[in-house]
Amino acid sequence: MHIAIVGCGQLSRMLALAGIPMGLKFSFIADAGEDSRCVEGLGTIVRWQPSEPVSAIYDGLGQPDRITVEKEQVDVSLLSALQAYCPVHPNPQAFATCQHRYQEKQLLDKLGIGCAAYLYGQPTEASAAKIPLPVVVKSCREGYDGKNQWVLKHQQEVDAFSQQAKEQNYIVEQWIPFDKEISQVSVRGANGEMRHYPLAENRHEQGILKQSVAPAEAISEQLCLAAQDYMCRIMRALDYVGVMAMECFVVKDQLLVNELAPRVHNSGHWTQSGSKTCQFTNHLRAIAGLPLGSTDPHGVTGMVNLIGTIKPPLASLPPNAALHWYNKAVRPGRKLGHINFTGANRESLIRQMEMVLR
Amino acid sequence: MHIAIVGCGQLSRMLALAGIPMGLKFSFIADAGEDSRCVEGLGTIVRWQPSEPVSAIYDGLGQPDRITVEKEQVDVSLLSALQAYCPVHPNPQAFATCQHRYQEKQLLDKLGIGCAAYLYGQPTEASAAKIPLPVVVKSCREGYDGKNQWVLKHQQEVDAFSQQAKEQNYIVEQWIPFDKEISQVSVRGANGEMRHYPLAENRHEQGILKQSVAPAEAISEQLCLAAQDYMCRIMRALDYVGVMAMECFVVKDQLLVNELAPRVHNSGHWTQSGSKTCQFTNHLRAIAGLPLGSTDPHGVTGMVNLIGTIKPPLASLPPNAALHWYNKAVRPGRKLGHINFTGANRESLIRQMEMVLR
Ligand SMILES: Nc1ncnc2c1ncn2[C@@H]1O[C@H](COP(=O)(O)OP(=O)(O)O)[C@@H](O)[C@H]1O
Ligand SMILES: Nc1ncnc2c1ncn2[C@@H]1O[C@H](COP(=O)(O)OP(=O)(O)O)[C@@H](O)[C@H]1O
Ligand SMILES: [Mg+2]
Ligand SMILES: [Mg+2]
Repeated sequence: MHIAIVGCGQLSRMLALAGIPMGLKFSFIADAGEDSRCVEGLGTIVRWQPSEPVSAIYDGLGQPDRITVEKEQVDVSLLSALQAYCPVHPNPQAFATCQHRYQEKQLLDKLGIGCAAYLYGQPTEASAAKIPLPVVVKSCREGYDGKNQWVLKHQQEVDAFSQQAKEQNYIVEQWIPFDKEISQVSVRGANGEMRHYPLAENRHEQGILKQSVAPAEAISEQLCLAAQDYMCRIMRALDYVGVMAMECFVVKDQLLVNELAPRVHNSGHWTQSGSKTCQFTNHLRAIAGLPLGSTDPHGVTGMVNLIGTIKPPLASLPPNAALHWYNKAVRPGRKLGHINFTGANRESLIRQMEMVLR
Repeated sequence: MHIAIVGCGQLSRMLALAGIPMGLKFSFIADAGEDSRCVEGLGTIVRWQPSEPVSAIYDGLGQPDRITVEKEQVDVSLLSALQAYCPVHPNPQAFATCQHRYQEKQLLDKLGIGCAAYLYGQPTEASAAKIPLPVVVKSCREGYDGKNQWVLKHQQEVDAFSQQAKEQNYIVEQWIPFDKEISQVSVRGANGEMRHYPLAENRHEQGILKQSVAPAEAISEQLCLAAQDYMCRIMRALDYVGVMAMECFVVKDQLLVNELAPRVHNSGHWTQSGSKTCQFTNHLRAIAGLPLGSTDPHGVTGMVNLIGTIKPPLASLPPNAALHWYNKAVRPGRKLGHINFTGANRESLIRQMEMVLR
């Protein structure tokens, strides 16, 4: 079976590396200027210009059996056009919903799933909408790694922001003093079968994911089940096939959904070392129409992102660590790889992770 | 770091697939007519003719930092010549010893490690050497998957064999009515550090490995320690760097070594799903001079070889199964892939494995 992936980043790389052992073939669709080093050697790369007929892209890929996507901000019209040639999973409508924060929030509202109080408009409308300061203002599109979002603490900041606002409508959210950030990674098969990984606890710094530990600790059974229930409702509502991630805030024993990612997710990388089937393999099993793999964990696993690291830290790998290096061009603040640590003892894992982060 | 591998079979494929995530680069040396489908796309393939100067091979590979080998029957003089350009692990002398059954037995004798009673010569000499029938006659070289070996039960068979013998000297072994076959897979680092995987229990049919289950059950602690002790002595004696496998017979509480494999081994494939670090990653860590990875197991794992299977059995994969397909040309009796099953319950694993074997 041949699978084409839209995008040439580390997620495409890890999808291909999970699928090649199973005998799957891969090809990739790159934007005109997109850096494709991560996937070089792993399959044909087709550079796409919006002017090009879709049939030429499909043929250039080598007529794949399935098309999938590694990034949220994909061109939905390209996906829709490709559906004429082979199944596209997740479906284009799921991307349309997740790539626009307002549409995403509306889906959550419709399904009765809690999130931070928000409005769609300008932060100056916050007090009328009874959203107290501080607020977090987010562009509806193009946000990732904390980019295109601003925390406004004082009324002066709010006014100054709106005066210089580039966009007419933002998502303006209440700033949540959360106890924890967690994520639920789940997978839905072509026949509707669903499986859920254990929750991961995530630590972000300046909006960028630094580390995850899974299974998250000190989370009530009820909250775990709520996260799974939300995912079931969301994936069913979107008729979703593949892996999806849901980022949440935990406030006391309450779960507030922050955002959805219609793809394999950085907070699921721990599954490469810590689960019977990693998120990449399960995404492929789902989109290929195969029975899903077990999401059961092995002990406790921690994932640390290598951000701006210049060289793969091969020589300092402890025995319980697995390195994943993406072969990207090095740039400060860029995710260049990650390390998964496995171990029975959560405290010593966290100490090891801190050593890498220093 | 760039690693070249002599050989283009499934072991090279799985070594590369384990190393690419770590950012390692690969290239491969193929014999003139060798089928290289398993590694196509994973790195440059250099076709080698014994007439070619070694410098041209080394340059053709792209000047690797390390050279390793996936097969026992490698040309030792090629390896020795390549040592002038970069480290070759395991060292050529280790191959010279392991690829000749008599030299291998002499090493075991020297180290005081038990094996079946044997002689070097013709089976007609067995009775004088007090080796009772049946005996197993093995060519000194070129044996694998039970090829080039013969079980002789009666004196007539012995006489007939020797009359038509193609070789002057064979290894003639006592046929061992073993309780179990097990294997020890271990790894030794460039600095002498050693780690041992748990023992695997193996089932062969007509000399070819059908399945392994690890950790092997009902093996005394003393026997486990003996296996590890043997490996320590053998690897130290050979100044070995990399993964080595030792196949053994268990007779009551006694361990008899059958043969050594100076490479990653089919009976270690279970480590891909069942251990913190798989044998392929650990071989690479060893030869690259990195600290070794943990060999701790996760629960119980079973491996089943797909022998002569025509298509990758994707659609029937249960949730606890991981498929490894080698992309080889299909031929009856050929190993074309394997499936690793993970689970807590040994009996249900074995039932699942039997379903595949049927
Ligand atoms: N309403 C909020 N309250 C508190 N922190 C927030 C809020 N929204 C975002 N954050 C912080 O910023 C991070 C990134 O925000 P997110 O909406 O997930 O955007 P991105 O798409 O960049 O990941 C979150 O993981 C969280 O740490
Ligand atoms: N001396 C012996 N007694 C009993 N069975 C043997 C003996 N030697 C080999 N066998 C059987 O044949 C299989 C293959 O033999 P082995 O020496 O390992 O050759 P190969 O290199 O083909 O693997 C063994 O795994 C075992 O099942
Ligand atoms: Mg986020
Ligand atoms: Mg053998």
